[in-house]
Amino acid sequence: MMKILVLNGPNLNMLGKREPGIYGADTLKQLEEGVISAGLKTGMEVVCFQSNYEGALLDEIHSAESRGFNGIIINPGALTHYSIALRDAIAGIELPVIEVHISNVHAREDFRKHSVTAPVSIGQIAGFGFFGYELALHAIKDYIRGRG
Amino acid sequence: MMKILVLNGPNLNMLGKREPGIYGADTLKQLEEGVISAGLKTGMEVVCFQSNYEGALLDEIHSAESRGFNGIIINPGALTHYSIALRDAIAGIELPVIEVHISNVHAREDFRKHSVTAPVSIGQIAGFGFFGYELALHAIKDYIRGRG
Amino acid sequence: MMKILVLNGPNLNMLGKREPGIYGADTLKQLEEGVISAGLKTGMEVVCFQSNYEGALLDEIHSAESRGFNGIIINPGALTHYSIALRDAIAGIELPVIEVHISNVHAREDFRKHSVTAPVSIGQIAGFGFFGYELALHAIKDYIRGRG
Amino acid sequence: MMKILVLNGPNLNMLGKREPGIYGADTLKQLEEGVISAGLKTGMEVVCFQSNYEGALLDEIHSAESRGFNGIIINPGALTHYSIALRDAIAGIELPVIEVHISNVHAREDFRKHSVTAPVSIGQIAGFGFFGYELALHAIKDYIRGRG
Amino acid sequence: MMKILVLNGPNLNMLGKREPGIYGADTLKQLEEGVISAGLKTGMEVVCFQSNYEGALLDEIHSAESRGFNGIIINPGALTHYSIALRDAIAGIELPVIEVHISNVHAREDFRKHSVTAPVSIGQIAGFGFFGYELALHAIKDYIRGRG
Amino acid sequence: MMKILVLNGPNLNMLGKREPGIYGADTLKQLEEGVISAGLKTGMEVVCFQSNYEGALLDEIHSAESRGFNGIIINPGALTHYSIALRDAIAGIELPVIEVHISNVHAREDFRKHSVTAPVSIGQIAGFGFFGYELALHAIKDYIRGRG
Amino acid sequence: MMKILVLNGPNLNMLGKREPGIYGADTLKQLEEGVISAGLKTGMEVVCFQSNYEGALLDEIHSAESRGFNGIIINPGALTHYSIALRDAIAGIELPVIEVHISNVHAREDFRKHSVTAPVSIGQIAGFGFFGYELALHAIKDYIRGRG
Amino acid sequence: MMKILVLNGPNLNMLGKREPGIYGADTLKQLEEGVISAGLKTGMEVVCFQSNYEGALLDEIHSAESRGFNGIIINPGALTHYSIALRDAIAGIELPVIEVHISNVHAREDFRKHSVTAPVSIGQIAGFGFFGYELALHAIKDYIRGRG
Amino acid sequence: MMKILVLNGPNLNMLGKREPGIYGADTLKQLEEGVISAGLKTGMEVVCFQSNYEGALLDEIHSAESRGFNGIIINPGALTHYSIALRDAIAGIELPVIEVHISNVHAREDFRKHSVTAPVSIGQIAGFGFFGYELALHAIKDYIRGRG
Amino acid sequence: MMKILVLNGPNLNMLGKREPGIYGADTLKQLEEGVISAGLKTGMEVVCFQSNYEGALLDEIHSAESRGFNGIIINPGALTHYSIALRDAIAGIELPVIEVHISNVHAREDFRKHSVTAPVSIGQIAGFGFFGYELALHAIKDYIRGRG
Amino acid sequence: MMKILVLNGPNLNMLGKREPGIYGADTLKQLEEGVISAGLKTGMEVVCFQSNYEGALLDEIHSAESRGFNGIIINPGALTHYSIALRDAIAGIELPVIEVHISNVHAREDFRKHSVTAPVSIGQIAGFGFFGYELALHAIKDYIRGRG
Amino acid sequence: MMKILVLNGPNLNMLGKREPGIYGADTLKQLEEGVISAGLKTGMEVVCFQSNYEGALLDEIHSAESRGFNGIIINPGALTHYSIALRDAIAGIELPVIEVHISNVHAREDFRKHSVTAPVSIGQIAGFGFFGYELALHAIKDYIRGRG
Repeated sequence: MMKILVLNGPNLNMLGKREPGIYGADTLKQLEEGVISAGLKTGMEVVCFQSNYEGALLDEIHSAESRGFNGIIINPGALTHYSIALRDAIAGIELPVIEVHISNVHAREDFRKHSVTAPVSIGQIAGFGFFGYELALHAIKDYIRGRG
Repeated sequence: MMKILVLNGPNLNMLGKREPGIYGADTLKQLEEGVISAGLKTGMEVVCFQSNYEGALLDEIHSAESRGFNGIIINPGALTHYSIALRDAIAGIELPVIEVHISNVHAREDFRKHSVTAPVSIGQIAGFGFFGYELALHAIKDYIRGRG
Repeated sequence: MMKILVLNGPNLNMLGKREPGIYGADTLKQLEEGVISAGLKTGMEVVCFQSNYEGALLDEIHSAESRGFNGIIINPGALTHYSIALRDAIAGIELPVIEVHISNVHAREDFRKHSVTAPVSIGQIAGFGFFGYELALHAIKDYIRGRG
Repeated sequence: MMKILVLNGPNLNMLGKREPGIYGADTLKQLEEGVISAGLKTGMEVVCFQSNYEGALLDEIHSAESRGFNGIIINPGALTHYSIALRDAIAGIELPVIEVHISNVHAREDFRKHSVTAPVSIGQIAGFGFFGYELALHAIKDYIRGRG
Repeated sequence: MMKILVLNGPNLNMLGKREPGIYGADTLKQLEEGVISAGLKTGMEVVCFQSNYEGALLDEIHSAESRGFNGIIINPGALTHYSIALRDAIAGIELPVIEVHISNVHAREDFRKHSVTAPVSIGQIAGFGFFGYELALHAIKDYIRGRG
Repeated sequence: MMKILVLNGPNLNMLGKREPGIYGADTLKQLEEGVISAGLKTGMEVVCFQSNYEGALLDEIHSAESRGFNGIIINPGALTHYSIALRDAIAGIELPVIEVHISNVHAREDFRKHSVTAPVSIGQIAGFGFFGYELALHAIKDYIRGRG
Repeated sequence: MMKILVLNGPNLNMLGKREPGIYGADTLKQLEEGVISAGLKTGMEVVCFQSNYEGALLDEIHSAESRGFNGIIINPGALTHYSIALRDAIAGIELPVIEVHISNVHAREDFRKHSVTAPVSIGQIAGFGFFGYELALHAIKDYIRGRG
Repeated sequence: MMKILVLNGPNLNMLGKREPGIYGADTLKQLEEGVISAGLKTGMEVVCFQSNYEGALLDEIHSAESRGFNGIIINPGALTHYSIALRDAIAGIELPVIEVHISNVHAREDFRKHSVTAPVSIGQIAGFGFFGYELALHAIKDYIRGRG
Repeated sequence: MMKILVLNGPNLNMLGKREPGIYGADTLKQLEEGVISAGLKTGMEVVCFQSNYEGALLDEIHSAESRGFNGIIINPGALTHYSIALRDAIAGIELPVIEVHISNVHAREDFRKHSVTAPVSIGQIAGFGFFGYELALHAIKDYIRGRG
Repeated sequence: MMKILVLNGPNLNMLGKREPGIYGADTLKQLEEGVISAGLKTGMEVVCFQSNYEGALLDEIHSAESRGFNGIIINPGALTHYSIALRDAIAGIELPVIEVHISNVHAREDFRKHSVTAPVSIGQIAGFGFFGYELALHAIKDYIRGRG
Repeated sequence: MMKILVLNGPNLNMLGKREPGIYGADTLKQLEEGVISAGLKTGMEVVCFQSNYEGALLDEIHSAESRGFNGIIINPGALTHYSIALRDAIAGIELPVIEVHISNVHAREDFRKHSVTAPVSIGQIAGFGFFGYELALHAIKDYIRGRG
Repeated sequence: MMKILVLNGPNLNMLGKREPGIYGADTLKQLEEGVISAGLKTGMEVVCFQSNYEGALLDEIHSAESRGFNGIIINPGALTHYSIALRDAIAGIELPVIEVHISNVHAREDFRKHSVTAPVSIGQIAGFGFFGYELALHAIKDYIRGRG
């Protein structure tokens, strides 16, 4: 059974409270339960983690392989746009990483169109709300199988 | 039954022949059959169209609603990066449009990171090969239901 | 009797359907009938043509002189901002060309403020809705007389 | 009877003397008499004002509504390209404002292609010599009627 | 009684030691005692917090409303210039936030002139030393009253 | 008793009429009376001056010291963004100058984020409506005392 | 016998009529007859094609190999500067492609100095009038032999 | 006897008071007396004018020829860097104009390196203090003779 | 005996695992043991610290002097390129700081060529693998002696 | 008999040794012998010169006409991208100059795409190895004849 | 008696032959004789040197002081725009240096507006033909006296 | 015994005389003697060369291998920032090259932060005065051994 780490970056703990016009009215807890549930349906164990600390996200990424994960789905939040450290962490591991954004970042401020992490990820999914995480689960499964 | 138009832009007729290291060894015909088949499995009728002419893509987009389509999945190919006409066509219709890229455009030349069409689409999916079209089918279904 | 060619570029066939808040609720047919009618009132024969194909617009421009036209009024739509081919076509003929925009392109996205075709045209009229075409008719008449 | 204020900015008092290859051989006096006369023909009272002082132009714009004007036609001259104060004055009044340029500013130095005032005007007319003011009279009349 | 959270970002714990020519010779302790005292004089309870961790500042901002605060005064230090995460945190809460800088950031290196957090704050006060925090207290009080 | 010159630049005479959504519904007269009154409360004589002429503002700044002023509070309006002459005037006098903006300029168009005058002022206060002038009075008093 | 496809892009059908000061007084027909004739002299069969449609040029390039061509000489005209679709078509085939320009594009407007197609071609020849095509014939022959 | 107009722009009335480290300790009166005196020595009548108003400088330039001047020496002060109106005034007259700067503008802030007026002047002299005006007198005499 | 603090930033705990083609196959532990050993040979006590948290690195730098260190050698990892907070921390202490990079950052992606921390350090050593830390030990010793 | 000067700039003496993957395995001597031989075949006397000194190349260009040359073929090597002195030398003589590059400079680093010398040359030939010099011989012959 | 070194950079040996429309019809010999003669009239010994080699100009500048020169007048030609080595040489000596240009560099191509050497010179004189050297002689004499 | 070539570029012959605040008071002779002496201590023969001519430095680099050198240490001086010829020379040889700067180039003018030669060198050492050359000797020794 595949084991997937789902990481959420800064401010995503505020889901439901933060700019609901952009991010929707549901909470991080609902998001995580939804992803875990969707994972189970397609035979994947999903573990979720959220932090407002860049360093904590790096620690999670560094240890993911040794903890038995087969891939990572990450929504780096605002770090997407400037955290070269996050980029280097993703580039430095063997596991496949998929980048997800709840909103369509390409339709917002210019600085949100540029991702420093996408170039070292497998791919990027943006604009589909919480459902984007479920799409990422399908995508990572398909990717791992293709490499298997 | 939802009816979805899948549009492929310039050079995608060369799939299988064009830079297989980037785009894979399968052909456009295989891509289209795969998407149609995936659509049927989830109860969606998929119609595919490819053209090397910007004008032909505009014609397709303009007439999609009156032909009964509920949404459009488009891989604009190179037009992604400069066809403001395509952008205006997408912005000018009511139907939801999802942008798909076979390769991870964010990991290639700088000029491929910028999409003029993504800001007027629902969202963008990039980097998952042909499977990205299938993900887009799921996404557009989820989106249409959410609006329904 | 002066004979004027009125060209409309990509997406202008969608007038009335496309972003009516920006472009108004009337259709291309109404626009063309209005311009033809306004032309007749000031003693000018107006012929209208619209295409979503850059190539078709080039063909029209190339052949305008031999078809007896005395001038061209063109709304290049989105091609205004990137079609150097259109620019070269305009620069390559002897006939006077006037550029018209329905909306005030200077008040919209930054990329709409730059026109690659205006530098090789006689002048530009933007922001006055369909009435801009009528203004252009007056302007081209005045211009041709001044040269006559 | 509509009452229109026609403003001319810095250096336009030099018409006829200044770079006749670009601006023509007629003087400001001829320009103003022509516009007043054209206004009368279409039932509009035209009042003309020229100044080399940005501040004087602002004063004119600020007081236009209380002096009974229905609209403003302005050729801001060189201020077009840097006077944010002029932009703010135009944006700060209710009256419609149309920007006119004698020469085709889009065909000259790069810095003349950018207008800080056009985004807050109804529209822009450029390249038709003195006749551009007459076109603007027609345009503002059409605009005011459309709103009436 | 209004309750205000005063946040100081990275390196502000070094006040008195760090570049006294720019930041003065007094310490963070003195700064905080001064602000608390100034708050009491105008009937506001002030709570101070400083951290070198972006994540810790986010946590403080996220929980401010539930801890009963009516507003936030923040000196983000160097994070002002690149922490989009801080920007998103400020944009994501309902409380008014005022940005303060001890030095006149507009008079220093170019990169200090740009603030990613100011656009989502109520306003910015820069250049008045520790006294800027006291000004911010007055400003936030005035703002909250205006909304009350 | 300290004597402070309060300068308002172009278009600020339109307060109450100009874009009330941004600048509020009160007039310049109310602003000036408020600042004079606030000055008196803290023992400062305030003299107000507004002009739409850059030159008039320079004259005021040049003569301020000889007229007995101890400091200047200035809202340069649109001149903030391009008047290097104003910058040079401020840099050329000994009196402290504080820059005030009614709106949060950092939250508006990009060109409003850059101030050519702030680098030669003591500091900048932006976003607090008319109250910003009162804050500036406190700030300049504190500054002059600190130098005294 | 080598078989070479010579492609001419938008506006090149206007040769002889369009800006003769830049492009000379001879026509496309003369150009094509000259290249065919020059090809025959060096033992190469030359087939010529011109289109104002980007899409038609893509179709030609895609099918060149299957139609038995050994190489392509292309003058993309204005498409040189923005048609990423053309770039991708050239990059996507196995045949060698040489880019030719009649005028010295490096000596004209800045936007003509940049070629999006040259990086995926074998090389570029610019500035030698119609004779550049003959040079390209020699070059492609030399190149193919070198690879043979 | 040649008659030369010497124009000084904004803030130059502050000479002697303004940043003496950059501009020296002498006053505008001393500067003007020195230039008049130097003019007399070489047989030129010099008339001096200073204004803080862009408009006043334009008026001077416009009327210079009709007032019998043979040439203009101008130190536009800060207007050098942004007053396109001044540029247009200089370009619009027949008289030769020489630009002078007291300080070496090329050795100061970046924005002082760019002159919008120098391209339409005969030449520029910068960095030689008040003596630069005397050099300009020699230069304009030499220039006028060369044309005579 | 000199006491030197050796700081390693984000992702350097991954040495040996992360992109060995760039960073080599040895681990952080080996790096730290090597530096400590090299320090002892030249009579310097070396203490090593690594963290993925920007805040933790700031804390280390702030307290270095009070803990008796004579200098700092830092490899800020990815923070080199955006952490203005790190820059301010280095600028805010009296101790000399030397920046080291294992790889030749100047030969990699463009964004790695720019260091925000190098301008406030004594100097930078890049491209010599782990041996760069040993060079830095020599350099800091030489520097401290030169100041002693 | 036409007499042509073939100039090779810095580092071209290293041909055969320098980056053979880019420049081939043959030496400068072979290159020069090949060009001389090719010249003889078409009735042209070729003289070759190589230098690593910008100044020496200028001297050659300056004296070429007086030494009886009819044209120059130059590969400026790296000087192509920054030697404005070389540009001015070429612009300053009457002889036609053709620029040649062994590699396809448009397909390499961005800074190699820009040539400061091409705008003052007749044309540019790039990407055909040593054969490019032979093409240039044909081109210069054709050019001189056309002017003859 | 003051002793002045007059340096002319690349291509200035071509005066009279090179672009006479820009640089005039007189030769370097005439220029040098004129400057020597003008120097004698004002009691200055002038020594002239021209080279097409950046290195030779550096050697001249380095040794000027020890050879008894009191100042340098330099026309760096094209090196003005890129030779940081020349800039460093000028900055590295105690002697005053004045930059002269025959043409008005500010009125030509954009790249000629930027001087890397002017910021380390006393001042710049541009646009007055050969007479500019004579002006520079006056200026350097005035400067040296002011320092004496 | 390893044999190392130490190259110093333009202006470094002025050491001790040139800007001693930046480069120190010691001369090139002292620098070279120091490096030779340091080389001997670690068993390396050092040969020094300085030139103000780019071409002479290229010649040295080209011939280094054939003269028996094992590596090059170069301080290109100002050429660091623009000499692509130097870059190509370094890239074109097999020997390892290390770039050294006496001052911390990253802490000076912006144009000194960019090195065109560092990307093709092994690494860069900047900011340690003359001692940087000694560090480079250690570094090149370590590098050559690692490859040995």
